[in-house]
Amino acid sequence: MGKAWNYGAGPSMIPVEVMEKAQKEFLDFNGLGLGIVEMSHRSAEFDAVAKHAELMLRKLLKVPDNYKILFEQGGGRGQFAAVPLNILPEGGKADYFVTGHWSRSAYLECKERYGEAILHECVEQDDNGQYFINYQKMQVTEGSSYAFICINETVNGIEVNQLPDTKGVPLIADMSSNILTRNIDVSAFGAIIFGAQKNLAPSGITVTIVREDLIGKARKYCPSVLDWSILAKYDSMYNTPTTFSWYMAGLALDWIESIGGVSELERRNAAKADLLYDYVDSSDFYLCPIKRQDRSRVNCVFTLKDESKNAIFLQEAKKHNMIGLKGHKVLGGMRASIYNAMPREGVEALIKFLKEFESQYA
Amino acid sequence: MGKAWNYGAGPSMIPVEVMEKAQKEFLDFNGLGLGIVEMSHRSAEFDAVAKHAELMLRKLLKVPDNYKILFEQGGGRGQFAAVPLNILPEGGKADYFVTGHWSRSAYLECKERYGEAILHECVEQDDNGQYFINYQKMQVTEGSSYAFICINETVNGIEVNQLPDTKGVPLIADMSSNILTRNIDVSAFGAIIFGAQKNLAPSGITVTIVREDLIGKARKYCPSVLDWSILAKYDSMYNTPTTFSWYMAGLALDWIESIGGVSELERRNAAKADLLYDYVDSSDFYLCPIKRQDRSRVNCVFTLKDESKNAIFLQEAKKHNMIGLKGHKVLGGMRASIYNAMPREGVEALIKFLKEFESQYA
Repeated sequence: MGKAWNYGAGPSMIPVEVMEKAQKEFLDFNGLGLGIVEMSHRSAEFDAVAKHAELMLRKLLKVPDNYKILFEQGGGRGQFAAVPLNILPEGGKADYFVTGHWSRSAYLECKERYGEAILHECVEQDDNGQYFINYQKMQVTEGSSYAFICINETVNGIEVNQLPDTKGVPLIADMSSNILTRNIDVSAFGAIIFGAQKNLAPSGITVTIVREDLIGKARKYCPSVLDWSILAKYDSMYNTPTTFSWYMAGLALDWIESIGGVSELERRNAAKADLLYDYVDSSDFYLCPIKRQDRSRVNCVFTLKDESKNAIFLQEAKKHNMIGLKGHKVLGGMRASIYNAMPREGVEALIKFLKEFESQYA
Repeated sequence: MGKAWNYGAGPSMIPVEVMEKAQKEFLDFNGLGLGIVEMSHRSAEFDAVAKHAELMLRKLLKVPDNYKILFEQGGGRGQFAAVPLNILPEGGKADYFVTGHWSRSAYLECKERYGEAILHECVEQDDNGQYFINYQKMQVTEGSSYAFICINETVNGIEVNQLPDTKGVPLIADMSSNILTRNIDVSAFGAIIFGAQKNLAPSGITVTIVREDLIGKARKYCPSVLDWSILAKYDSMYNTPTTFSWYMAGLALDWIESIGGVSELERRNAAKADLLYDYVDSSDFYLCPIKRQDRSRVNCVFTLKDESKNAIFLQEAKKHNMIGLKGHKVLGGMRASIYNAMPREGVEALIKFLKEFESQYA
């Protein structure tokens, strides 16, 4: 069987050049007679790998010097707890700008476990039933310790394109699904959190980019492994990290630089998304439930107008080596995740399939 | 350069058969046209991988039906918090049987963050200065919620060979460094925790084997990702696990079964350790600071009587493709970690080197 296209929401495709390099040196890293997964995280060799990945991330995202980059475990879900544990004082409150499944999950983790989380429902439907972001709803509450936002909602296919004015309150952003897919101004955020498994590396690494003044306020009962001050103090080596994912992140960051950096990925990703959405919008057979300006460039949600054809659609897709197109169970429909490692050919192949399926089943 | 021997405390060597299989199918798992690291943790293919690893672990460790096996992130350190967060009630107390660095770290995590941790110093020195375990010190306190023990102390090279009578109080054991190295009776424990990276798989997976009646008592502020009841409810897929480490664990478990199971590893590990300790004890040049009956079979700590030769010893070892022999910084000296994947040849090679070094520098 040839190369499959995986449009699943994550873990996701990895650039073939990265995969081939990792395979080649899997048994013998840098001529040391051992694989990178067999080496101590405290060895000089792994230390160089780790520092290189951090340096590349700092360079490609233009992370200012007053921000720490922490490599952790536990995923976005772990950080949904870590954020209030680290920066919400006992008895304090925080704003949550909810635009979909993941910002709502972050809100619930805070509300049910850590304190007063203020819910701001920011997505509405217009007269045609299409979803859009009402940015007017993104207002911070007086005395709030932080405002939480999810910049790209993997499940709902909604992406934030303008940042709220938080009046000096730190803006904490989950970018698990769109980090490194476009340029960002890190200095606009108090902290950025993301799991690696969509746009960067195999699952197992979670990155927190955090402004230094937000470090050192953790609650007494914050587990050490989620305490940003401990992670910062030990250069993310307080305990054994997921060495393979960290190493793969470094390879992927080298690849990103080699193709022209984040700006080039931004250009490619916008072009890929336009191609797909233009086709969906031109069709009477498929439908996108989100207003164009708020659609995610990396998780393209669409439906078949005749939902009774969903099962056969997914079956036929699989026959064409296209997997992961089923939408999230809370939403139904379809979703094509076209992250950094999905080449334009993967989008073109999908559109070709959509056309063929439409002409056969319309 | 040929195959190196890594005697480091972890991450550690992986059986070459396992490494070769993973390398071979790295770009194309089961003919699906994608690597396992590129596939969704919710795909049918990964689900089969995950269930297989769990089943094999249950089989090889003879885990009773009333125990759950949870696959987590965050390492042993994460579980040092998870244990009190899950089973120490507010205002409750727990006993910690301290035999070295890791049990002390677990004790401190509980004491500083979660409640009354009762310290039992269980290691003493005899008249010759050798360390030994005083099992009489392992007494549970009335009203204790659990007793914590570390079965093998990686840093100190001490291994517990007889379990305390806890009078019905759940015994919680850290087996990060000796799980699957010898037969255990899981039913003697309330829970067993271990990181995968020493005897099983690349770092990134932490396993908790826990008796079902201990699940469901987590504190309100326990992060979801460390809450055993949530992990059990979602079959360890509440959030994205470290898929590659989980997959590699399955391959390693298949390898263990193929060579004869845990009993065979126990036999091999005991023989390897005897070989090494017999030599160290016969030498006037090297010294083991621990009484023979309490020495770890997997982390063999020894010193050079003349410590001024430490640096040249490590240099010469590296020239012989032997790495990771430096002892933990809190203890100094040397340490040879000879886990499951270290073949007898690796121990023989080390002894040969020890002899040569002794004859040259004595």
